Amino acid sequence: MSDDVYFYEAFEEETEALRRHLPDELSAGFTWRTIQESGHDGPLARIISTRTQSAFPGAWADRLDAILTRSTGYDHVRDYLRRTGRDIAAGYLPLYCSRAVAEQAMLLWTALLRKLPRQVDQFPRFERDGLTGRECRGRTLLVVGVGNIGHEVVRIGRGLEMNVLGVDIDPGHADVDYVSIEEGLPAADVIVCAMNLTDENAGYFDRRRLGAARPGTIFVNIARGELAPAADLLELLDSGRLAGVGLDVYEGENELAVSLRSGVAPADGPAAASLELAARPNVIATPHNAFNTAEAIERKARRSVESIVEFIRTGAFPSPVPL
Amino acid sequence: MSDDVYFYEAFEEETEALRRHLPDELSAGFTWRTIQESGHDGPLARIISTRTQSAFPGAWADRLDAILTRSTGYDHVRDYLRRTGRDIAAGYLPLYCSRAVAEQAMLLWTALLRKLPRQVDQFPRFERDGLTGRECRGRTLLVVGVGNIGHEVVRIGRGLEMNVLGVDIDPGHADVDYVSIEEGLPAADVIVCAMNLTDENAGYFDRRRLGAARPGTIFVNIARGELAPAADLLELLDSGRLAGVGLDVYEGENELAVSLRSGVAPADGPAAASLELAARPNVIATPHNAFNTAEAIERKARRSVESIVEFIRTGAFPSPVPL
Repeated sequence: MSDDVYFYEAFEEETEALRRHLPDELSAGFTWRTIQESGHDGPLARIISTRTQSAFPGAWADRLDAILTRSTGYDHVRDYLRRTGRDIAAGYLPLYCSRAVAEQAMLLWTALLRKLPRQVDQFPRFERDGLTGRECRGRTLLVVGVGNIGHEVVRIGRGLEMNVLGVDIDPGHADVDYVSIEEGLPAADVIVCAMNLTDENAGYFDRRRLGAARPGTIFVNIARGELAPAADLLELLDSGRLAGVGLDVYEGENELAVSLRSGVAPADGPAAASLELAARPNVIATPHNAFNTAEAIERKARRSVESIVEFIRTGAFPSPVPL
Repeated sequence: MSDDVYFYEAFEEETEALRRHLPDELSAGFTWRTIQESGHDGPLARIISTRTQSAFPGAWADRLDAILTRSTGYDHVRDYLRRTGRDIAAGYLPLYCSRAVAEQAMLLWTALLRKLPRQVDQFPRFERDGLTGRECRGRTLLVVGVGNIGHEVVRIGRGLEMNVLGVDIDPGHADVDYVSIEEGLPAADVIVCAMNLTDENAGYFDRRRLGAARPGTIFVNIARGELAPAADLLELLDSGRLAGVGLDVYEGENELAVSLRSGVAPADGPAAASLELAARPNVIATPHNAFNTAEAIERKARRSVESIVEFIRTGAFPSPVPL
């Protein structure tokens, strides 16, 4: 192994920021690829760092001291540690991008309320038919999952003079008007999914539950694709229950991302359904990019390097993945 | 003349709302076309209503009792009345769409800060290089022209936790931090043009003045194209002074709109420059659609009909165009 640490899934701007923060005495390798795309037979360092799309090979477990996922979600690392049962230190990065993600959620719901893609499509004919949108002010925003990101979404909704309702199993924020999901869904003009993916909540926004929304509702998912199955969203869009869907995350995202980057569309299953969904005219699809602001990249690179330095010094990450 | 009133430039949703509000005793005709596109030899009613893209024929002046422009801007009607010198009653619609326009401005600057068009373009390859955006929170928004629309833009910017500065010849809002344009331009991350077009301010945002912005600034115009000449914006984009431009209005817009709808691109002049500008990858161009929300259409149809009924009853519009 030639390096102290190897970074997977590090795109251009992030690599540059990581290099800027790394101390001289640490050697590091970088690729924008996932582990599976890299074709590496084994880890190129005892410490590896990924984002959320790498599948960790079982055979690597013996040759790893530590994994740092440069994401606020850590379910994929937790699953690997449970599966392999090895004593690998694992860390994640809480809080580095809450505002960035929340602002992307706002951008998606506003663009959908105002039919921005269609506005842009019709500019070359300067034609306004069918472009009537809806204003944010006075409309009801339902934020499902009021953690760090969800709480920022609440602040933004309030800032836009929306009526904001929150749903969470832990109604811990004194400044949030909590409702049950059953009360919230039929009241909402816009629903934002900002939940953590846990063992219990995969498929939470299925056709049955989300079918309780009013016809014409906008649904935005900036959390995890598995919380809102693609086949269900397709059905709800086609029936008009949902008027628009904004997605930064996808059911079957790992397969979808690798397929798209290799130029081969997934044939079936959740990844194929996600691709079909993303192609609908009333869907705005972004490539898991909500975290990606200059502010967040800078914060993330600094905390990634601090986490690795602390692991090397003490043997533990400042934010260890809970098992 | 077969009708009491004839509505030009009335697109689908607006026509429907106007029909809903018109009293039974008034007969009305409708077209989505401008006057020049309609091919009408003379007015089909003594009262006509347009938006901002119709050119009023000089020869019609003798056959018109009244013009209602269904827009908050009225410079085009004022110019016609001055040119013809006839005693035609003229009305406009203040305030019906301030929030709709302000929210579209926000959508444009947020989409530009986050490179939304490029995010969407790169989804089919699930590729994140070059997609790092900027957050609204903490950035400086300069609102130039703090009238009804500008004041809504100020509220929205504050709601997004931006630092908001205002520029106006009449610093009349107690809650706005006014600066001079010279102070404001180099401080801004985002500039929104929300001025009225007057005899004095055409070309206000020319290359010299807007050249004082910081490299990488976002510029949004939801007011009138003539306030920011297209050739100047092209130069400022190409030099990197502006990182993105959001436009809902265009220099030479009447010619541009008619050309585009007839499928013939304008050959030269401001309309051609506007078309070149709109095609740049870091420009988001919408077809003068900022006013177009369900809330505003409803308000506008109601006020249009109220204005016409009041003119018929009293001989004067509730909001007459100032000469």
